[in-house]
Amino acid sequence: MAHRSLVNLLLFGNRTISCIFALRSLRTVACGASSAPTAGFKPDKVAVVTKTTRYEFEQQRYRYAGLSEEDLKQLLAMKGSSYSGLLERHNIHNNNVEHIVKSLQREGIQVRVVKRGEYNEEVVRWADAVISAGGDGTMLLVASKVLSKDKPVVGVNTDPERSEGHLCLPVRYTRAFPEALEKLCRGEFRWLWRQRIRLHLEGTGINPTPVDLHDQQLSLEQHNRAHRITTTDTHQRSGMLHQTVSEPCLLPVRSLNEIFIGESLSSRVKVKPFKPHANFLLHRASYYEISVDDGPWEKQKSSGLSICTGTGSKAWSYNINKLAEQAVEEVLRIGMSEAGADLPLSPEFIQKVTDSYNESLVFSPAQRRLLYSVREPIVNRVFSSSRQRGFASKVCVRSRCWDACMVVDGGTSFEFNDGAIATVSMSEEDQLRTVLLEN
Amino acid sequence: MAHRSLVNLLLFGNRTISCIFALRSLRTVACGASSAPTAGFKPDKVAVVTKTTRYEFEQQRYRYAGLSEEDLKQLLAMKGSSYSGLLERHNIHNNNVEHIVKSLQREGIQVRVVKRGEYNEEVVRWADAVISAGGDGTMLLVASKVLSKDKPVVGVNTDPERSEGHLCLPVRYTRAFPEALEKLCRGEFRWLWRQRIRLHLEGTGINPTPVDLHDQQLSLEQHNRAHRITTTDTHQRSGMLHQTVSEPCLLPVRSLNEIFIGESLSSRVKVKPFKPHANFLLHRASYYEISVDDGPWEKQKSSGLSICTGTGSKAWSYNINKLAEQAVEEVLRIGMSEAGADLPLSPEFIQKVTDSYNESLVFSPAQRRLLYSVREPIVNRVFSSSRQRGFASKVCVRSRCWDACMVVDGGTSFEFNDGAIATVSMSEEDQLRTVLLEN
Repeated sequence: MAHRSLVNLLLFGNRTISCIFALRSLRTVACGASSAPTAGFKPDKVAVVTKTTRYEFEQQRYRYAGLSEEDLKQLLAMKGSSYSGLLERHNIHNNNVEHIVKSLQREGIQVRVVKRGEYNEEVVRWADAVISAGGDGTMLLVASKVLSKDKPVVGVNTDPERSEGHLCLPVRYTRAFPEALEKLCRGEFRWLWRQRIRLHLEGTGINPTPVDLHDQQLSLEQHNRAHRITTTDTHQRSGMLHQTVSEPCLLPVRSLNEIFIGESLSSRVKVKPFKPHANFLLHRASYYEISVDDGPWEKQKSSGLSICTGTGSKAWSYNINKLAEQAVEEVLRIGMSEAGADLPLSPEFIQKVTDSYNESLVFSPAQRRLLYSVREPIVNRVFSSSRQRGFASKVCVRSRCWDACMVVDGGTSFEFNDGAIATVSMSEEDQLRTVLLEN
Repeated sequence: MAHRSLVNLLLFGNRTISCIFALRSLRTVACGASSAPTAGFKPDKVAVVTKTTRYEFEQQRYRYAGLSEEDLKQLLAMKGSSYSGLLERHNIHNNNVEHIVKSLQREGIQVRVVKRGEYNEEVVRWADAVISAGGDGTMLLVASKVLSKDKPVVGVNTDPERSEGHLCLPVRYTRAFPEALEKLCRGEFRWLWRQRIRLHLEGTGINPTPVDLHDQQLSLEQHNRAHRITTTDTHQRSGMLHQTVSEPCLLPVRSLNEIFIGESLSSRVKVKPFKPHANFLLHRASYYEISVDDGPWEKQKSSGLSICTGTGSKAWSYNINKLAEQAVEEVLRIGMSEAGADLPLSPEFIQKVTDSYNESLVFSPAQRRLLYSVREPIVNRVFSSSRQRGFASKVCVRSRCWDACMVVDGGTSFEFNDGAIATVSMSEEDQLRTVLLEN
């Protein structure tokens, strides 16, 4: 009955009138927890945040060199890239964005389109809901500025042929967005509250200024300033070096996928003070100590530590832990050989075991627990390691790194050097409200 | 008999006289290939290349801030590091270096001690043999400037408690170096020729200037200059953009452990030309195409590609491919469940299977073949991947990356962007001559 009134309102009423089940009064329905119908959802104001296409990136990259479009085309061709291919993806994305925007406007919804570089807290405050128009990366960016669990975020995959879109609506809604809007309005969907991670940081000389890794405008100087071990301060306060360790500080970020801790692969600090950091791809192992659920501290050496959510268990964490059929087959073969057993290892059987193993790496985004994974653990005469992977409510990490970072969702980094301690946990208020639509 | 004459020469003859089995006339004995005695080896001139200790690094790091030793001690303490601990390792290293140097001098050998920053081709030319005094990292550096297969390189682990020293002599020789020298002189050892990797690079806009990732003096500007896509040149030659792809160029490096190809984890090129790169730890997947032994090209997306030697099969490649007991147990458990079988999975059994699997990842340094490993392959709707790991004589890689590098032994990087093609292979003349001493 409520649905019908809603439909009537839409068809016959003033389209700018928010339906009576306005955003603020919506009943919340946890994923799978109840079969009660979800109240309809029709926001007045929607911000659409769009990704930067590769075509745009290449254009900007060479813009300062004053290249014409023809020059750009030839340059890309020389590199074996296809100018027309990039332009095609660019146009597909833009067409899909236009489709979304027009669909919203037809429903009388105020729309504001912002490029990822223009997206900020003000946009979030203005909007009743935020749509991410891009891929999973754009969703992560959008989520990163939504700290309240009441503001819905919806992802639309604007290039399904090129983008996975795990965090986006099913691909069919990309070109059928009005259908999605209709279902939202009717309440024919579920809310999915994705648990996110919060971070406390403590230790001396830590400047908890986040560095936005995607910020194209950030110069190296600004990066250094943000991340510098306060050696100048230390020098000035040399009489006060007995200063105590700072209190744990709750960082102003929430991670939707994962926290990754590891050496930042930078070369060493210059001996001469005014030469900037030269940062290179250098494989240096990460040293740290880890304590799970207030357990004993354990020293580890590895390629880094990933601590992910249920959402993130399908992302980088999945790739860290996933096994290839080749490895599974070899393990089973050796197992049979060692046991003197004779089990037929058909390709179908191998695939079944592999899929089963890999599926066990994924868990529900709504679960309030973390999955920690040690990436490429180094076990030798000097170091040992217990579990490579496990669930937890809380993970503490003490850095023993030379020049490490804590990276949130691959997009924001915090300095995390020798002596710093990070506490990784989850809290109910950190959830992100997203939409689950039937395919 | 030859041995006795040798001993006599040493004990009674002029110590500066090279023994009759001088370096140049040594018979070569491949590892395990022959039981004929190795001719003795006594070089006239030995260069000893020493590592930088962490203590020295921390000192240099803060030197510009004008900190006193006392300040440094307090600063380290605040970070939870132990100043006295670092100093202790520093002294242990230096004592061991002194032990090596004195042992050499006692044999009448000319010794030249060089820090890693001072080590160059001139030192290699001067020396009859080069000793690496440090850990495996120092050995890689030493090897990187020895391109001839006739110049012996010997590694001594100067901090066995902290360093693995896979590439070094057995640890007991660290404090008993005269014993090692004696055995060398008597021929009581084997030569181990470690096969190395050579690299050809082709593609437009490639500047094959290697960047030394450990070079503390290299400013970011120099790095950019070395690695810049020649956009300025392109602009000036805009009338000549039809320039053909450059010929494959053999790079002046030989890899002892591995080549690693991957996105350099840098943020994007600045829109404004005079703002330097800001490079951060950003997990971006690497896109490339791979062709094994002239097979068909296959597109891949992963965390990077490792191509290693037998020597390197115990290094990074090993950690990429190694399985934890936890994973092996899970695979076997699922396998048993899927097959409806009931095999007891005791901890000892799991450990046996795990060790057996991991041992199969390692092969002899003398073998002239490569092992390629795809690190964290991304397999989804968009990308697929065949073998995650395999042997080959030749591997070709075409970059589809935005900002990638090819890293040689974790120490030297080459730009490897969209369109560039690397050919990775081995040649008999690229071997490194090292020493195999009984424990």
